[in-house]
Amino acid sequence: MKIIETIAQMRQEITIARKAGQTVGFVPTMGYLHEGHLSLIEAAKEKHDVVVVSIFVNPLQFGPNEDLERYPRDFERDERLAKHIGTDILFYPTVQEMYPETMPMTIHVTKGVEVLCGESRPGHFDGVATVVMKLFQIVQPDEAFFGQKDAQQIAVIMNMVSAFNLPLQIVACPTVREEDGLAKSSRNVYLSDQERQEAPLLYETLQFGAELIKSGEKKRDRVLDQMKARLDNGTGRLDYLTILSYPSLNETQTLHGAIIIAVAYFYQNARLIDNYILEA
Amino acid sequence: MKIIETIAQMRQEITIARKAGQTVGFVPTMGYLHEGHLSLIEAAKEKHDVVVVSIFVNPLQFGPNEDLERYPRDFERDERLAKHIGTDILFYPTVQEMYPETMPMTIHVTKGVEVLCGESRPGHFDGVATVVMKLFQIVQPDEAFFGQKDAQQIAVIMNMVSAFNLPLQIVACPTVREEDGLAKSSRNVYLSDQERQEAPLLYETLQFGAELIKSGEKKRDRVLDQMKARLDNGTGRLDYLTILSYPSLNETQTLHGAIIIAVAYFYQNARLIDNYILEA
Repeated sequence: MKIIETIAQMRQEITIARKAGQTVGFVPTMGYLHEGHLSLIEAAKEKHDVVVVSIFVNPLQFGPNEDLERYPRDFERDERLAKHIGTDILFYPTVQEMYPETMPMTIHVTKGVEVLCGESRPGHFDGVATVVMKLFQIVQPDEAFFGQKDAQQIAVIMNMVSAFNLPLQIVACPTVREEDGLAKSSRNVYLSDQERQEAPLLYETLQFGAELIKSGEKKRDRVLDQMKARLDNGTGRLDYLTILSYPSLNETQTLHGAIIIAVAYFYQNARLIDNYILEA
Repeated sequence: MKIIETIAQMRQEITIARKAGQTVGFVPTMGYLHEGHLSLIEAAKEKHDVVVVSIFVNPLQFGPNEDLERYPRDFERDERLAKHIGTDILFYPTVQEMYPETMPMTIHVTKGVEVLCGESRPGHFDGVATVVMKLFQIVQPDEAFFGQKDAQQIAVIMNMVSAFNLPLQIVACPTVREEDGLAKSSRNVYLSDQERQEAPLLYETLQFGAELIKSGEKKRDRVLDQMKARLDNGTGRLDYLTILSYPSLNETQTLHGAIIIAVAYFYQNARLIDNYILEA
């Protein structure tokens, strides 16, 4: 596995791979890799000759009161995991390398961000779209792999690919979970023991809502009310719980077609998100 | 010369060229080609195996009170000129093809747009950057060629290439002029006979200002005052006349180093721009 820290070197590697007729699969991450990330790398390996994994904690997608400073980092562990699973190139640029100066322009997302995390994290998806656009231009992959846990992120990035005619495909991979159902997340390390024990409540509640819908409940508010009653048992604080059409992310009072049930929940030191996509 | 109207076909052509190891030069235009455009195409031909010219009047870069509807168009003439000069591919998409739906996100330019045309045309460079980003992704050129007449546009696009790490180079080509000095522009057809006769005043005034500076005048305001006095003889209306550092586009009262003298001037049915770059 090659570790590359500069954009120029990354470009060189990709040019060589391209000239050799190899395809490139790309997994952009913020590091602190868990099995969710590893499943993306495996999916990329299955389909591509060269797999590039990037590790970059992107300041642009953190709000002023968010957890940029204390976002968990452990490069040596990440390096070991990435190598072990068969990553070809680990792209690990510094903030200075990615943003040598204040960006003179950014991508400003106007659609699909007035709901979910876009609503509670203003500017977040501008930062995500901007850095992913940069990474796509640097790595020039045939396909890029993202986890379904970040459902709104996938929707925004798919919109970006289509809006700017980017010459690549997005692959959405299923959320990987702990045995008790908690979605794998780098931020799970910030849960206290008690919170960690309680946290599967999120996915249980999503499953409960999904069951209500599958058994015929068509009224959005009635599903949400019953789900909220369950979440009230938690010791954290609800950020949002909602049901939207998927992937268009519109609100409809009567549930039908493809929908997403999505939740964001604050514990003391971590904000967790999870979702469940189904046919109503 | 191939005429291509869809993004999918354009991609196919480029993939073929790439596989054959050919380089691609790109000249994006809004059509109504004049010798300025043709000089860009010639410059592209000198350096590249395949030359792509696009013709697309981009609605996104026109303000609500601007001349989108009556921007001059003559595809048959453009086709003839482009073919005659040796264009390989003419990319001529419809608005529907480029914008099948409202853009869910755009590029928002924050640097270098508080002056010149950015100031008098709010949102203009967001529209320019957005469409050029799309075109770059579709055509995937090695180099793209732009005319120096649109100096601020070149600055914004060079910033975009660097900010988003686009894998291509921008080539700036000298402004092509009529024999009497008027910068070639598609909008010149909208000048009345009298305005056309008078319009070389813009370039004469730029030259006059440049001479003042070359002969030792270091005070920005004194140069501008004398230039404005000349422009007062015109029958149109001044939009802006300014001197800025180049390419950084900052205002400094004392002139030194690379600078741009830039003018925008309204006639009845056309707003003309021109500039002069020199060492102070």
